[in-house]
Amino acid sequence: MDALPKADPRTPPPPDALSALLAPRSVAVIGASGDPSRIGGRPIAAMLERGFAGAILPVNPNRAEVQGLPAFPSVGALPLVPDAAIIAVPAGAAEVAVAELAARGTRAAIVFTAGYAEMGPAGAEAQARMVETARAHGMRLLGPNSLGLFNTANGFYGTFSSSLERGYPVAGPIGIASQSGAYGMHLFSMARDHGMGLSCSVTTGNEADLNIGDLIGWMAEDEGTEVIAAYSEGIRDAPRFLAALERARRNRKPVVMMKVGRSAVGRAAARSHTASIAGDDAVTDAVLAEFGVVRARTTEELLDVARLATRKVYPAGNTLGVLTVSGGAGVLISDAAEAAGLPMPPMPEAAQEALRRDLPFCAPQNPVDCTAQVLNDLSLVTRFGGALIRDGGYGSILLFFTHAGGAPSITPRLREALRALRAEHPDRLFVLSVLADPPQIREFEEDGFAVFGDPSRAVAAIHAMGRFGDAFAAAPPAPAPVLLVPALPERTPSEAEAKRILAEAGIGAAPERACASAEEAVAAAGALGFPVVMKILSPDILHKSEIGGVLLDVGDAAAVREGFALLLRRAAEAAPAARIEGVLVARQLSGGVECILGVHRDPVFGPVAMFGLGGIFVEVLKDVAFHRCPFGEDVAEAMIRSIRGAPLLLGARGRPRADIAALARMLSRLSAFAAAAGPRLAGIDLNPVFAMPEGEGAFAADAVIDIAEEAA
Amino acid sequence: MDALPKADPRTPPPPDALSALLAPRSVAVIGASGDPSRIGGRPIAAMLERGFAGAILPVNPNRAEVQGLPAFPSVGALPLVPDAAIIAVPAGAAEVAVAELAARGTRAAIVFTAGYAEMGPAGAEAQARMVETARAHGMRLLGPNSLGLFNTANGFYGTFSSSLERGYPVAGPIGIASQSGAYGMHLFSMARDHGMGLSCSVTTGNEADLNIGDLIGWMAEDEGTEVIAAYSEGIRDAPRFLAALERARRNRKPVVMMKVGRSAVGRAAARSHTASIAGDDAVTDAVLAEFGVVRARTTEELLDVARLATRKVYPAGNTLGVLTVSGGAGVLISDAAEAAGLPMPPMPEAAQEALRRDLPFCAPQNPVDCTAQVLNDLSLVTRFGGALIRDGGYGSILLFFTHAGGAPSITPRLREALRALRAEHPDRLFVLSVLADPPQIREFEEDGFAVFGDPSRAVAAIHAMGRFGDAFAAAPPAPAPVLLVPALPERTPSEAEAKRILAEAGIGAAPERACASAEEAVAAAGALGFPVVMKILSPDILHKSEIGGVLLDVGDAAAVREGFALLLRRAAEAAPAARIEGVLVARQLSGGVECILGVHRDPVFGPVAMFGLGGIFVEVLKDVAFHRCPFGEDVAEAMIRSIRGAPLLLGARGRPRADIAALARMLSRLSAFAAAAGPRLAGIDLNPVFAMPEGEGAFAADAVIDIAEEAA
Repeated sequence: MDALPKADPRTPPPPDALSALLAPRSVAVIGASGDPSRIGGRPIAAMLERGFAGAILPVNPNRAEVQGLPAFPSVGALPLVPDAAIIAVPAGAAEVAVAELAARGTRAAIVFTAGYAEMGPAGAEAQARMVETARAHGMRLLGPNSLGLFNTANGFYGTFSSSLERGYPVAGPIGIASQSGAYGMHLFSMARDHGMGLSCSVTTGNEADLNIGDLIGWMAEDEGTEVIAAYSEGIRDAPRFLAALERARRNRKPVVMMKVGRSAVGRAAARSHTASIAGDDAVTDAVLAEFGVVRARTTEELLDVARLATRKVYPAGNTLGVLTVSGGAGVLISDAAEAAGLPMPPMPEAAQEALRRDLPFCAPQNPVDCTAQVLNDLSLVTRFGGALIRDGGYGSILLFFTHAGGAPSITPRLREALRALRAEHPDRLFVLSVLADPPQIREFEEDGFAVFGDPSRAVAAIHAMGRFGDAFAAAPPAPAPVLLVPALPERTPSEAEAKRILAEAGIGAAPERACASAEEAVAAAGALGFPVVMKILSPDILHKSEIGGVLLDVGDAAAVREGFALLLRRAAEAAPAARIEGVLVARQLSGGVECILGVHRDPVFGPVAMFGLGGIFVEVLKDVAFHRCPFGEDVAEAMIRSIRGAPLLLGARGRPRADIAALARMLSRLSAFAAAAGPRLAGIDLNPVFAMPEGEGAFAADAVIDIAEEAA
Repeated sequence: MDALPKADPRTPPPPDALSALLAPRSVAVIGASGDPSRIGGRPIAAMLERGFAGAILPVNPNRAEVQGLPAFPSVGALPLVPDAAIIAVPAGAAEVAVAELAARGTRAAIVFTAGYAEMGPAGAEAQARMVETARAHGMRLLGPNSLGLFNTANGFYGTFSSSLERGYPVAGPIGIASQSGAYGMHLFSMARDHGMGLSCSVTTGNEADLNIGDLIGWMAEDEGTEVIAAYSEGIRDAPRFLAALERARRNRKPVVMMKVGRSAVGRAAARSHTASIAGDDAVTDAVLAEFGVVRARTTEELLDVARLATRKVYPAGNTLGVLTVSGGAGVLISDAAEAAGLPMPPMPEAAQEALRRDLPFCAPQNPVDCTAQVLNDLSLVTRFGGALIRDGGYGSILLFFTHAGGAPSITPRLREALRALRAEHPDRLFVLSVLADPPQIREFEEDGFAVFGDPSRAVAAIHAMGRFGDAFAAAPPAPAPVLLVPALPERTPSEAEAKRILAEAGIGAAPERACASAEEAVAAAGALGFPVVMKILSPDILHKSEIGGVLLDVGDAAAVREGFALLLRRAAEAAPAARIEGVLVARQLSGGVECILGVHRDPVFGPVAMFGLGGIFVEVLKDVAFHRCPFGEDVAEAMIRSIRGAPLLLGARGRPRADIAALARMLSRLSAFAAAAGPRLAGIDLNPVFAMPEGEGAFAADAVIDIAEEAA
């Protein structure tokens, strides 16, 4: 048996609770087991095997010794206050342990114990009480129902995952934050099997206290973590989560994330798995893109992106130059780049000429195909690769050497040529697509080349590096307009009232005038310009078109006079008791493009604005853009340009260009209005909005303001 | 040195030239080298190492012995007529060798030699002469510029690829046919590295004679090949290619294909790589789908599909049932299935109840999440897995056990449970997603479980199995209508003439009448129904709307009379010399959905019909469906239903349902017209076609028939 555990008095205490959780000087294991295959035994065995840098304090009332360490009968009997604790006892006992640890001043605990919120309302209550107890003493909790965490920097293995049976992680720059324990360990296992270096991995379980936002935030400041890989089913605390993403972006740490729950089945499953709110998937896409987070669709894509990101080359305005020994693979790579949206501009003409002089049967455009000839003359690698960088100026270079790169007769000479190329251009992102044995792949990687067997996966990962680069280099967006808090009515207002409220905020409807007499209506129509729309004006008639109270396409003064009389007649017939205030005369818009602008309150991210083209584009094709409110006109214009149907607004096929600036102004002001309005605003629909030809404005022909029934 | 080579007289000669190419009893190597690293030496070394079942006959004028084999100075000096030959001498000498071999009666030759069509017009001519010489004697050629082939069944290695340096393929059921040599060997190398069994691999190079269609056709009949993996940049001979695909389908052999050249850059690169015609990518998609070919987007996807296909379970009407130890992975799998279009219906309510009784905290819907509890009680695998199959009736079962499946403390018990499950349901498609060491993965595979580390890749491959199953089970489509060969005019006809020609084929325009007087026009309008469209009728005025010669929305008899006079006046002013035949009065269609029906002549696949919604849907969103002509109404209706905007026609959001039957009839007849018209027909555009509400028909408002300038 070892001597009593000691906390080195020279080691300063962790600066915060999260640091205590991930890098404790001492850890108590409540429910410690002598059997290394049991939940309470696995962490101890792992820490002993990996040489945890701190003190391990097993707590077990029945044993004086656990896995060779002195054990203590209770939390109260511990000879020192542990920085952190691992709780591996059943529900009930876990709550007692949390209370005792919190009272002694332990700063953070990992709660393995299951049987809480994931089991129903009673469990949720017990979980809430446990968090309350901890917080009362300033102790933070990971879990409950967490598979735990590990930190390769100090050998802290606070996890009972069986994934460690097949090996421990290599230390490295990638941190993993996963809500799901099993999936987090799936990620870790794949990363380990691919030899990827990890700094730490944390699974947050029920997220009763700490959530993945907190962990991303910690990793954003952790010196050992350079790249963050995250997994979530639903974001619990949007402000903390977004603040963490912003810290990562400011510190130039790429975040690649799997956020599941895209599908209807997925969303149902996500809800049954934990008590998450999956959120609208398109909104999630928009929010993650806003912070430069790359959203992965598959586990391999997530790991590919994380692995390439550890090269720390993030080319803003990324472009791809390709050197290939196979024309076929060159075509395949071009297809993959186009599908991903990664530009592959051609080499300059003069550079193409020079390459043709060097190797007459090469294809020098981009991809540059130097054919299998390069395997006979490996100096072509340096000459052609150098030309790609110098003359093509590509942000990223992909070199496809397939199995030839792994052939013993070629590999050593190829390696030499590649080293020479990279030595000349050490700041460039180099990716190599070869099929080779693992030791050869490791050598290429050591030389500074990320290696991918499948060139399509290489392209996807390279594209992600550009997106990180763009996010790191992005200028801050223009400020959103600042609006006064609007005075919202008690209940959902009428169209006219909604338009008035929005008009006060500078969000314009089509010009219209209330007219009490036919002559007033003729004058108004003359001022507005023919044709006009005429609508009966009465606080008692809400559904005007049902009684024939709307006339379209009224073309001249005579028709206005006739129309005025007709509307009054119809109103008198259909609703004899209605108070008639006259007729609303509005300019009839034509030649504009129908758009929809809207706001809804996302349960996770609050008010979110939407832009789309009218009718079928939104209904059937879901061709819309989202952004959190508020935002400025630059963001609004980017949203407008991002939809697939944007060419309709930008003058496709001889159409007039729409007034994008007016549309962007309206969208930006709408976002500011929604942000200022607070939670009583459930939503706004401006549908249709007519985007008129350039210089002629944009006008909402209808407006609905939806007031939440249960105001906060 | 061995004794003189002998062809076993008891072995029957290969039944055809392709069998001679792939399974020769004897092979001459022209340009044989004693150095196993040289092009002329590699095939010999490989065949010796792999125990080629036939005789190897090196030809080298300077050596009596090559790699231990007796060598012969010339083709003429060979002691027997070889079934096949490998030609590894420079251009020029290669043509001589082809001529000598062909004259002696050799049935097939692999031409490694480069410097032909890929180098320009002179090379193309030499290549054409070489093929002519060979064909004159009935000899077939693979190449030139081919990396060759191998056949694991007989150890025939007619290839000089360096890919063999890292190991030979395992024999198995997958055949590879690739136009690109380097890419074909890339495929082979990845397959080998993943331990996949191969029957043969052929790279067709310049395809001067044999092309991948021929090779797919041969593999479709080859006993050793059960799954075909193909790569092409452009199809050279559509009838041969499609006949081969049909043979494969009839023989229930799945074909998975990479056809590159999707992108603009890709198409340019494809053209520079070989002299291929890339074809329109959407047309290629449609044609491959027609024959049940699964088109892979990445190399890994291609190999995943081929590997899973070797299980030979192809569930028609495929659905996916999922058993998972991780709710998070369950959500991820649901998302992937929805994205792929693979249905995951929920378990029946009663079955869910039963599972809940068995394990209260399970999520029994589908994915069925039996939580990590299954690792403690592996009998759950049999019970829950059995319920998925019996009660859920899913065509495919995916079991997600992540790293736990590879943990030494779990794997043996898991394997036992899985074997029991499969023994009860041996005909089902079982896929296992685990992370394990290669020997453990092999064990699972031997037990009948295909293993994928990444569950998303498993889902994509499972989806492909259902598509194969649907293709194998599909009833033959309805026959296309048989039309007489239409009498096409010499040149592109006028709109009226085009409509008349199409009307004869039963392809209707909106009802219209030519009227010589205002009174005739009034009568016509009354008969057609108001409102009508009026157009000036003159053989000398082609662009009617430019002179104001078209009136829309003519609403009553008085307006028709006025309109008649107005049109004649405008015509007289604008074109005083024009012969005026009167006015065309047409029913003005309203309430219909605008569609586009068209035909164009694809350079590869001949006349191809297109269907799309009008205007922006085709122009901006490219939301169209294609099919080779001709086809029946069932195929036409499937095309109409396949576009994203189809809900517009099917009555989305309270719209009237369009007359789909009439639209399908028109599309099918159009396809029959195009097929009957022959190559002089360059294209047809019916734009717009108004699909009226159900029962009211579909009418072309405009028609263009485009006649090819250089008729064949």
